[in-house]
Amino acid sequence: MTAMIEERLCNLRKSMQRTAINCYLIPTSDYHDSEYVSSFFMVRKYFSGFTGSAGTLVVTEEEAALFTDGRYFIQAAKELAGTEIKLMKMGEAGVPTIPQYLERVLKEEENLGFDGRVVKADDADVYEEILSKKHGKIIWDKDLAKEIWQDRPALIHHPVSVLEECYSGESALSKIGRVRDKMKEEGADVHILTSLDDIAWLLNVRGNDVESCPVVLSYVVVTMGQVLLFAKEVSDKGHEGGEEIWTEELCRYLEENGVTLCFYEDFYDYIAQIHEKKVLLCKGRASCRLMKGLSGDVTVIDRPNPTTLMKAVKNQTEMENLRKSHLWDGVAVTHFMYWLKKNVGRIPMTEVSAAAYLEELRKKVAHFVEPSFATICAYGANAALAHYSAKEEACEKIRPEGMLLVDSGGHYLEGSTDITRTFVLGEVTKEIKEHFTLVLRALLNLKNSKFLHGCRGINLDVLARQVLWERGLDYKHGTGHGVGYLLSVHEGPNSFRWKLLPDYQDNAVLEEGMVTTDEPGIYIEGSHGIRLENELLCRKGEANEYGQFLYFEDLTCVPFDIDGVELSLLTETDRVRLNAYHKEVFEKLEPYFEGEELDWLKEVTREI
Amino acid sequence: MTAMIEERLCNLRKSMQRTAINCYLIPTSDYHDSEYVSSFFMVRKYFSGFTGSAGTLVVTEEEAALFTDGRYFIQAAKELAGTEIKLMKMGEAGVPTIPQYLERVLKEEENLGFDGRVVKADDADVYEEILSKKHGKIIWDKDLAKEIWQDRPALIHHPVSVLEECYSGESALSKIGRVRDKMKEEGADVHILTSLDDIAWLLNVRGNDVESCPVVLSYVVVTMGQVLLFAKEVSDKGHEGGEEIWTEELCRYLEENGVTLCFYEDFYDYIAQIHEKKVLLCKGRASCRLMKGLSGDVTVIDRPNPTTLMKAVKNQTEMENLRKSHLWDGVAVTHFMYWLKKNVGRIPMTEVSAAAYLEELRKKVAHFVEPSFATICAYGANAALAHYSAKEEACEKIRPEGMLLVDSGGHYLEGSTDITRTFVLGEVTKEIKEHFTLVLRALLNLKNSKFLHGCRGINLDVLARQVLWERGLDYKHGTGHGVGYLLSVHEGPNSFRWKLLPDYQDNAVLEEGMVTTDEPGIYIEGSHGIRLENELLCRKGEANEYGQFLYFEDLTCVPFDIDGVELSLLTETDRVRLNAYHKEVFEKLEPYFEGEELDWLKEVTREI
Repeated sequence: MTAMIEERLCNLRKSMQRTAINCYLIPTSDYHDSEYVSSFFMVRKYFSGFTGSAGTLVVTEEEAALFTDGRYFIQAAKELAGTEIKLMKMGEAGVPTIPQYLERVLKEEENLGFDGRVVKADDADVYEEILSKKHGKIIWDKDLAKEIWQDRPALIHHPVSVLEECYSGESALSKIGRVRDKMKEEGADVHILTSLDDIAWLLNVRGNDVESCPVVLSYVVVTMGQVLLFAKEVSDKGHEGGEEIWTEELCRYLEENGVTLCFYEDFYDYIAQIHEKKVLLCKGRASCRLMKGLSGDVTVIDRPNPTTLMKAVKNQTEMENLRKSHLWDGVAVTHFMYWLKKNVGRIPMTEVSAAAYLEELRKKVAHFVEPSFATICAYGANAALAHYSAKEEACEKIRPEGMLLVDSGGHYLEGSTDITRTFVLGEVTKEIKEHFTLVLRALLNLKNSKFLHGCRGINLDVLARQVLWERGLDYKHGTGHGVGYLLSVHEGPNSFRWKLLPDYQDNAVLEEGMVTTDEPGIYIEGSHGIRLENELLCRKGEANEYGQFLYFEDLTCVPFDIDGVELSLLTETDRVRLNAYHKEVFEKLEPYFEGEELDWLKEVTREI
Repeated sequence: MTAMIEERLCNLRKSMQRTAINCYLIPTSDYHDSEYVSSFFMVRKYFSGFTGSAGTLVVTEEEAALFTDGRYFIQAAKELAGTEIKLMKMGEAGVPTIPQYLERVLKEEENLGFDGRVVKADDADVYEEILSKKHGKIIWDKDLAKEIWQDRPALIHHPVSVLEECYSGESALSKIGRVRDKMKEEGADVHILTSLDDIAWLLNVRGNDVESCPVVLSYVVVTMGQVLLFAKEVSDKGHEGGEEIWTEELCRYLEENGVTLCFYEDFYDYIAQIHEKKVLLCKGRASCRLMKGLSGDVTVIDRPNPTTLMKAVKNQTEMENLRKSHLWDGVAVTHFMYWLKKNVGRIPMTEVSAAAYLEELRKKVAHFVEPSFATICAYGANAALAHYSAKEEACEKIRPEGMLLVDSGGHYLEGSTDITRTFVLGEVTKEIKEHFTLVLRALLNLKNSKFLHGCRGINLDVLARQVLWERGLDYKHGTGHGVGYLLSVHEGPNSFRWKLLPDYQDNAVLEEGMVTTDEPGIYIEGSHGIRLENELLCRKGEANEYGQFLYFEDLTCVPFDIDGVELSLLTETDRVRLNAYHKEVFEKLEPYFEGEELDWLKEVTREI
């Protein structure tokens, strides 16, 4: 691998020389600021060997550096070992930010290059400012991977289906109407939408163009009279093609909802001819290429996409469906838990085979679409890598000792799930039990909170984290993220996070109908990792003279492994909360279990 | 009062007519955005009768409205009763903001007037935008009170003293050097400082020009070569005067620190002649008049005043001094507690006389300067008015039943204090005990927190508030505010607050040396009010792979009245924390008590 990376970097530097680029920047993104990217877009991985889902590679003539966040410090160090690429642990003391790094490595009159379609407009602005000080320029139209990456996968458009109203709860026509209301409110003539989950939500369509996120590669432009969907694939012959995907039935559906189908490739030409309009878009999610492509006489109204908040607030139908999908998903995961705990040490199992078994169980659920993300099934010390991904060729055997962390989820027509459990497989140390109990307490503390409307995740994060902070521990990730409905498993604008990060746009006021995960953890490098995760549905509670109170309803329905609990570390409140949750879990799951497995379920959800 | 208010409003409207002002706005402020204002500036009180420390009066030809916040809803309703002035409860559902109100009441081509020296620049911008839409204009140079308010108090400059280095811990020269470093960092040539506490801190001077805040009425302009202090009073004869205040010794002190003394009234002339410079100032604290007064060729670098953060982070000398002043202050308040609880029902006492007695006790402390704010001494239902102020002519007798809330503090050369205790004077209901215990738990929860560096008040507020939220209760004020050192008792940029209010500039990252109050409360209108308040000094704890942990050291040293505690509602953790605090309080106070009073102290700080 090391030699291959050197060769690729060497080729990249040759291309840079040819194009007068002194420093080339490769973020992890597609043309739509998607979190997960299809293989066509895995350029950063191609040039660095780092397989994590987030990171930016910066290559100059003399050096190469990979910037990634706390989730990936351990994994990136492993994967970059032996290459020339320096790991930049973002957020750590003394580590420069990307702009600070550029400031340092770029010399006077040097140029910075990138593919402007995969670089955010806001980031490009910052880079441009640095370059202008150094009298260099930004070259934003160079996808250097195009010529270097010989066997690059194609950018494929997959089949598209309509999400029926019994699942979505609202017609596309109605959603478009609400977007237009919001446009009027903002005084906008045009709204440009490039984020794929927003588009899929708005039009009630689902596809398969991004891994683990059933979206359709597309752009949308909404005016008061039109909705243009740029999604049709171009055949080899030119402006024809895509008929296999855009069937007559689909085209009729679009027509009924006032949507005009256009070619995917025509988007930039279209936006270039918008003149003297007020265009509502979210600059924080727009690409550099999009902003450069707008005519100078356009007035940009920079606001969060109206769809972002609308889609985060699940409607009654979606809420009802989510309760169903989480129950079915919980049945699958609980069957898995039984299988794992009964069979470990008796039958051979590895991180990969266990994950596969869990996927088999999910596949039995009616309306299962696909896993909502690549399962993290991490045994022993591997679990300390917060986003570890086991490989067939190099994965751990699971033995009847220590713990197995499984973070997984499914997409169903009834919505998406995301759940983490850490299972105890045999003897564990006193320290591990202590850590397990702390993580459980942290999760319970947050999920049982009651709070006034107006609260944001930033207010509540500490309810989980304080349990760890009290003992000088922490986890280097947010406590939770929003979850889409048969869409991205990481979705804004809600989250639980303690740091103010305005760029993340995930610090919105919590509203009834929002779904957020609650997933504290403890990771001890080289030893063990524990994470527990439930999904919480925000609900209205009492309203009184102080305001509207909100609370969380548990969506996730799987026992916590009480073999990991050190009872003496639970407060009375924790104990009551844990028992109440387990009682509810047992009551919901009972109809799906029988015989020995039912006895077991009773046992693992018993009052403690 | 009602008739007098009607007459004053009538006069105001006549003046408005004469000056072509259709709507006149009167905030509560002086020329320096001070929180408390000297009597010269109490224009809003003069025209409305509302005596609270915060509120804005808006008067049109047809109507008048007073905007104030949750602290004052009850009090304002009382004081405005019978007048035509409508109370606008800011933040309540359906209540317009001031801009929304202006939007509604201002007709096409109408003008808005105010005294630009007492209106914030940011607010004026918002008003100007509304007016421009309506084709009206802002008239920002009209202090209409000038002609109407016949017996208006004079704007007086009081004697000034130097705060010696054994109290301040750093010379003015050194502080000015740090400000200049910050100016260089920001690329500024000039720094304009108009906030009085920042100026007093920077120059280590103290005065008496604002009630409860020992500051000097002044402006400062810092350049790389000069520090201009605009503070000298003009005598009746013209540009002479102020010699009684600015003694030879003081002038020598200023000279030694490179400070040039100028006339207070010359400030606006001076800034008008600044040309082609980069001026660092905090627009959020600047007046409309200041911004209008700057020449068009000046580049404004809008940043928080560098002094704001510097002064909030207390140095070693200040920290040591604060420990002393809080101990002495605690001795006084604890003596008061003894006196109150022993004598209630035996000797006559009222809210006013009790507050006076407490002030007498503080006056006995060496280096006592003045109360740090007007004592709130509120008996029974009066305590439900969060910022109640008892009047000699209309105050409650204190009886041996219910509770007395006392929120008070002192300015000492060793720093300022702010403490609230609610004392139980006899039988109290079960509900009151429950509320008292909840407030105590909330306070303990926050003050015992341990957290990572990077946290802001917005992250931690919930640690106090959750105890109340769990039971559907709340208090309509922040949980705490920063406290100055022999300066304003409310000081940014630190606070504990759960709502994101960027305008408040009090959401800074908590740093070692910052002092913040921890003061949850419960207020039941018509029944009772409970608030408990300690001051917390932020300190560094352990640093490990997760970062630098911080914790709070208690400055306040006064027992909580355990007669209010319902033991069954305390968790084990609460109990341990309360006992630990009382043990510490007893050990520190013991040397200052003897005989029967010492026995009593032992009793009220006993383990429970």
